Amino acid sequence: MKNTIFKFVALALLLLCSSMSLLAQEVTKTNLESFLEVEQYNRAIHIMVMLLIGFGFLMVFIKKYGRSALTATFLLVSISLPLYFLIHTSALFHEHGTEIEELILAEFAAASLLIAAGAVLGRLKMFQYIILGLIFVPFYMLNEWVIIENGLGLIKNGVADTGGSIVIHAYGALFGLAVAMSMTTKKELEEPIEADATSDRYSILGSMALWVFWPSFCAALVPVEAIPHTVVNVFFALCGSTIITYLASITIRGKINIADIANAALAGGVAIGSTCDHATHIEALVIGLLAGAISTIGFAIIQGKQKKLMKIVDTCGVTNLHGLPGLMGGFAAIVVVNGLNVSDQLSAILITIVSALIFGFLTGKIISLFGHRKEAYVDHEEFMDAEE
Amino acid sequence: MKNTIFKFVALALLLLCSSMSLLAQEVTKTNLESFLEVEQYNRAIHIMVMLLIGFGFLMVFIKKYGRSALTATFLLVSISLPLYFLIHTSALFHEHGTEIEELILAEFAAASLLIAAGAVLGRLKMFQYIILGLIFVPFYMLNEWVIIENGLGLIKNGVADTGGSIVIHAYGALFGLAVAMSMTTKKELEEPIEADATSDRYSILGSMALWVFWPSFCAALVPVEAIPHTVVNVFFALCGSTIITYLASITIRGKINIADIANAALAGGVAIGSTCDHATHIEALVIGLLAGAISTIGFAIIQGKQKKLMKIVDTCGVTNLHGLPGLMGGFAAIVVVNGLNVSDQLSAILITIVSALIFGFLTGKIISLFGHRKEAYVDHEEFMDAEE
Amino acid sequence: MKNTIFKFVALALLLLCSSMSLLAQEVTKTNLESFLEVEQYNRAIHIMVMLLIGFGFLMVFIKKYGRSALTATFLLVSISLPLYFLIHTSALFHEHGTEIEELILAEFAAASLLIAAGAVLGRLKMFQYIILGLIFVPFYMLNEWVIIENGLGLIKNGVADTGGSIVIHAYGALFGLAVAMSMTTKKELEEPIEADATSDRYSILGSMALWVFWPSFCAALVPVEAIPHTVVNVFFALCGSTIITYLASITIRGKINIADIANAALAGGVAIGSTCDHATHIEALVIGLLAGAISTIGFAIIQGKQKKLMKIVDTCGVTNLHGLPGLMGGFAAIVVVNGLNVSDQLSAILITIVSALIFGFLTGKIISLFGHRKEAYVDHEEFMDAEE
Repeated sequence: MKNTIFKFVALALLLLCSSMSLLAQEVTKTNLESFLEVEQYNRAIHIMVMLLIGFGFLMVFIKKYGRSALTATFLLVSISLPLYFLIHTSALFHEHGTEIEELILAEFAAASLLIAAGAVLGRLKMFQYIILGLIFVPFYMLNEWVIIENGLGLIKNGVADTGGSIVIHAYGALFGLAVAMSMTTKKELEEPIEADATSDRYSILGSMALWVFWPSFCAALVPVEAIPHTVVNVFFALCGSTIITYLASITIRGKINIADIANAALAGGVAIGSTCDHATHIEALVIGLLAGAISTIGFAIIQGKQKKLMKIVDTCGVTNLHGLPGLMGGFAAIVVVNGLNVSDQLSAILITIVSALIFGFLTGKIISLFGHRKEAYVDHEEFMDAEE
Repeated sequence: MKNTIFKFVALALLLLCSSMSLLAQEVTKTNLESFLEVEQYNRAIHIMVMLLIGFGFLMVFIKKYGRSALTATFLLVSISLPLYFLIHTSALFHEHGTEIEELILAEFAAASLLIAAGAVLGRLKMFQYIILGLIFVPFYMLNEWVIIENGLGLIKNGVADTGGSIVIHAYGALFGLAVAMSMTTKKELEEPIEADATSDRYSILGSMALWVFWPSFCAALVPVEAIPHTVVNVFFALCGSTIITYLASITIRGKINIADIANAALAGGVAIGSTCDHATHIEALVIGLLAGAISTIGFAIIQGKQKKLMKIVDTCGVTNLHGLPGLMGGFAAIVVVNGLNVSDQLSAILITIVSALIFGFLTGKIISLFGHRKEAYVDHEEFMDAEE
Repeated sequence: MKNTIFKFVALALLLLCSSMSLLAQEVTKTNLESFLEVEQYNRAIHIMVMLLIGFGFLMVFIKKYGRSALTATFLLVSISLPLYFLIHTSALFHEHGTEIEELILAEFAAASLLIAAGAVLGRLKMFQYIILGLIFVPFYMLNEWVIIENGLGLIKNGVADTGGSIVIHAYGALFGLAVAMSMTTKKELEEPIEADATSDRYSILGSMALWVFWPSFCAALVPVEAIPHTVVNVFFALCGSTIITYLASITIRGKINIADIANAALAGGVAIGSTCDHATHIEALVIGLLAGAISTIGFAIIQGKQKKLMKIVDTCGVTNLHGLPGLMGGFAAIVVVNGLNVSDQLSAILITIVSALIFGFLTGKIISLFGHRKEAYVDHEEFMDAEE
């Protein structure tokens, strides 16, 4: 099996190398352009903190699964980042951004992939995450190409999705959900995923890393003069979702659930993505409040029913954190953004939902070919010195 | 009780919305100004790391209190940030900075609030932190308005307090001390606050996050050409306090106390605030050495006596980390800053001390109306699945 | 003993103060230069995250040694940073950079020192780390002066080592190895250094903090227009080493070793240092793949033999993470960088190896004068409340 992976990776790298125009970029920019790009560079680093430390540690809550969650994060980022970058700067695409812009787009793809992986966390072996990454990236690029770059001529007037509520968050969540759907066995439904009580502080660490750097995610590709307003909006949305998560969690459950805090507090960041550069601060706060409420309701009420009715185990609850708030954010743009083409916005949402579900389901079937688990994964299986 | 909070928050938001001029900021700045603001934006993000990850994890050392310390941090930031921003950009204030400047000022308020909350950590329920935040912010703004914006015409020639030794650190610490004073019961004095031995590494994580980003805190609103000198000064002060903390801790106590390291190592950052843009590097180092020594003496010697004599329990020892070093930093400016109006500087310190103590005491009484504890708070009280 | 340290530190500070031209820097730069310096400032902060949180937590894996690893990190940084800065901006050196450039150079020295300390971690008392820092910095500066500033006229055409594969990583690792060599007792060889099973997530946190900010380390002093290409190269190298570390670890050992992941995943960053601004992206990826493979082989195979044959205990395996990949990176420049003077590059590598080993061995002997351990250090020895 290991040999198969070796060959697969080698083949993929070779194909990429041969098909692309090697990037021996000349450094002939003017100072001003350089400044703009170095500005963006700081945001690219912030996003990288979110990808590794943010997503990585947010997922460290499953019992006996800390090592693999962090290793999986490392591998998913390391596979998707160069893969997206090399394809997107190859001759396949006609227009290329600056290197930092391409890096940020690659980070967006990695974020969406990490979201998708969250749905099946604890059910894949390490090499299956690599396969997931290799399949996910091209599908993600297809959706992005259709919606953002109007690849098929379907979205003529553009969509409002600066911070990726639709194409990053909702796409990743629904893709992951579909992978889970096509992989979940009856046995898994019976076996509860146990949280590790001592890991909650790691989860909060991941959550806070996502929270503080989220404005850099949303403002990453925004023109320099619009950054301040965007940044304040994102913080307002996050403050809104954090407050409401506390109120909703204690109201619905009677006591505060720390996993609600770690997760739903971020829903404002997810939902503000589509409108982060257009909303007023108060609108941003309201979007955050709504998103946090929806997300907490998702974790506290819907998740249990989802498992029973749809026969899906969504390990990290990505439907509730990225799926519902992402879609809500996409719809919110219709109210908030002046002059938005409503039919284009709705088409973008619909295309994202459909393609994520179809390609995700397909991907789940492919991954199953490399091994279909009957019992929950524990670190012990692949990691040395891990507790049994 | 929950309904009361709901209504309170809703009312506050409504009042704010109706009274303020909505910020539909036009984006018409020149490139240079935009650059300057995006420069500041990076520092605003750094400060946010300090608020959530820094303060949050520094406080995760009390036994059975990790979840609530982190949740309280989340709530305090989420309440104070929009509250300060909306009031300070409303028609109540005549002159408005750029959005990022206003954001940074709001972060300063949140920092001061977190310091104040550190004094009563482990004795409030979650909704009481929200009340604390709602009351603290207006009081903080009043002091800031009087001292920095010369609101009452008392501080005509200005004070030296760029990095907030006086108005942020000392104010927050003394405010918190007064809240603790008006709330501490006899029972609490008898019951020791137990540190959680396994949490020390989290505390150091918080401490390090504060340490590394502290220069961005002090240099946040400094003119671009003064930033490099300021930044080096802050690091020098922090290096000084870190070294002396080790020496003082092992000298006074016989062995190193890891809590001394986590806390007093930061005293240099607190104390350099008033003079960070004026001191020479050697002066900065000396201020750091002094501040670290004072702070360690505070933790190792004064804290015990304070509890006995003044009948106060200052949970996180904010008096020792932010109070004494903050005041020392304010006084140091008299020696270090050329042309400083000494009487204004002294007035600013005096006003800060008096208003922090009075308003803090008052706030403690108000919070007590919403429930006065007889036994130490444990996570189990409000959080699901927490150990009893 | 404590008094000795007190006097030593005081003396060192006095000597420095008196010998140097005090830096009362005038703030008279043009806006453009200021911008460039503030740009660099962000990278200086990123590097500081790597030094404290990165190196600090990466080393928190030895049983009963968490507190001292973190305290040692604090002390090493706090000693070396002002020491390097004050010496390098004194009259001893003719040409001075901007304050931020000098700060970054000081951070590089601190990084190299932390690497060296990693080799003897768990065998020094806290004050011995201070002595190590005081001795290391001048030796490090000597090597840097000879190689980068062509101090002895030996390296006339310059070397390729932008990100410090040779003068920072290899130098630190070999210096530390030599310290370990001259200090390791027979007893230590018998006593295994036990890893703390619950600390692996802290190590990964440190590792991830290093990973995400590594581009800022390599690009810290690069001209603004070359930063984007450099940054992408560093990420490509890190992605390469991360993927190969997983594959090599599971292939060699049968199961994944989480310490391999935490360490060898970073080898790409170490090795790309010499060529980060010259390599193509694909070359960067290949250098990362090679470095990760070498490093994992080092941890999985060589480390055990090193201990037996060379009678050295390299606690953190810095030879495998910084030594071998650093040297490899230095050699890779010969292939990658057009117009490089090969003999200068080879001389630089040779000088670094020889001076690191000699001065390191000497330093080990000096430190041994202050106490030579027979038993492994445990936190309990110097820290209050630590488990025995």
